[in-house]
Amino acid sequence: MTSGFRPLLPADPQAIRALVRATGFFTPAEEEVAVELVEESLAKGAEKSGYHFHLYAGAEKLLGYACYGPVPMTLSGFDLYWIVVAPETQGKGLGARLLTACEQSVRGLGGKRLYSETSSRPLYTPTHKFYERHGFIAEARLIDFYAPGDDKIIYTKIL
Amino acid sequence: MTSGFRPLLPADPQAIRALVRATGFFTPAEEEVAVELVEESLAKGAEKSGYHFHLYAGAEKLLGYACYGPVPMTLSGFDLYWIVVAPETQGKGLGARLLTACEQSVRGLGGKRLYSETSSRPLYTPTHKFYERHGFIAEARLIDFYAPGDDKIIYTKIL
Repeated sequence: MTSGFRPLLPADPQAIRALVRATGFFTPAEEEVAVELVEESLAKGAEKSGYHFHLYAGAEKLLGYACYGPVPMTLSGFDLYWIVVAPETQGKGLGARLLTACEQSVRGLGGKRLYSETSSRPLYTPTHKFYERHGFIAEARLIDFYAPGDDKIIYTKIL
Repeated sequence: MTSGFRPLLPADPQAIRALVRATGFFTPAEEEVAVELVEESLAKGAEKSGYHFHLYAGAEKLLGYACYGPVPMTLSGFDLYWIVVAPETQGKGLGARLLTACEQSVRGLGGKRLYSETSSRPLYTPTHKFYERHGFIAEARLIDFYAPGDDKIIYTKIL
């Protein structure tokens, strides 16, 4: 089995839980949310659930994935909910490939704007740099949104 | 039967649909979302669904309601999803009473910040004035969020 993009599979709730946990980057509550989106997409389908996936697997396991979907009540806004790359695969351009795949799909669905929300904490500085390097701008900031001292930054990319 | 606040009842999906429609203020898609939140709260309960309600009924029908709930992944953020008053009851302070009821409940649940998202369109100028009069500030704005020329304004009230 070679590496590459593949569709969402029934075993992916477990695969995505393992990947998200392996990064050491997410809280248990965030891990639950990540898994719930996979389960909902598998149960209802991407269109009905609103959760679309791009997954990239190596020979032995899932190496990265992204999850996006339309923003309800908007004409052409999409949220990039998750973009996660396995620790041993980071720094090799897989995040950029996943992002490009999402942007192409979003354009194909008529999307004009892609949003990504992130925490302002220093832990997320590489995430901020990733978005800025790939054409997102920090369009808005909500002070103390997640917790005192932990703002929400909303990144926007015009497609 | 006198007027007053009352809990959510099994017939409220229809009552809320009628109220939301009577305002002439919401699109059919928005009306569907309003009803879905009621149905989910009735099916799963307020805590599990994340949709809490305050309803105010007159002798014959529902006159207004508000829906709020915790913002996932935040320590103490709450969203004010809906606040709707029947056309014939507007301008009599019911919106303010519903808002006060939400703020008290949110504080009781440990909430420190209440968010309300609205469109920048002139149709919503009375909404903006309502929030500003009641201690919200326009903390962020996302250009062309809903559609070209239709920004999202995020109002925040510190509780």
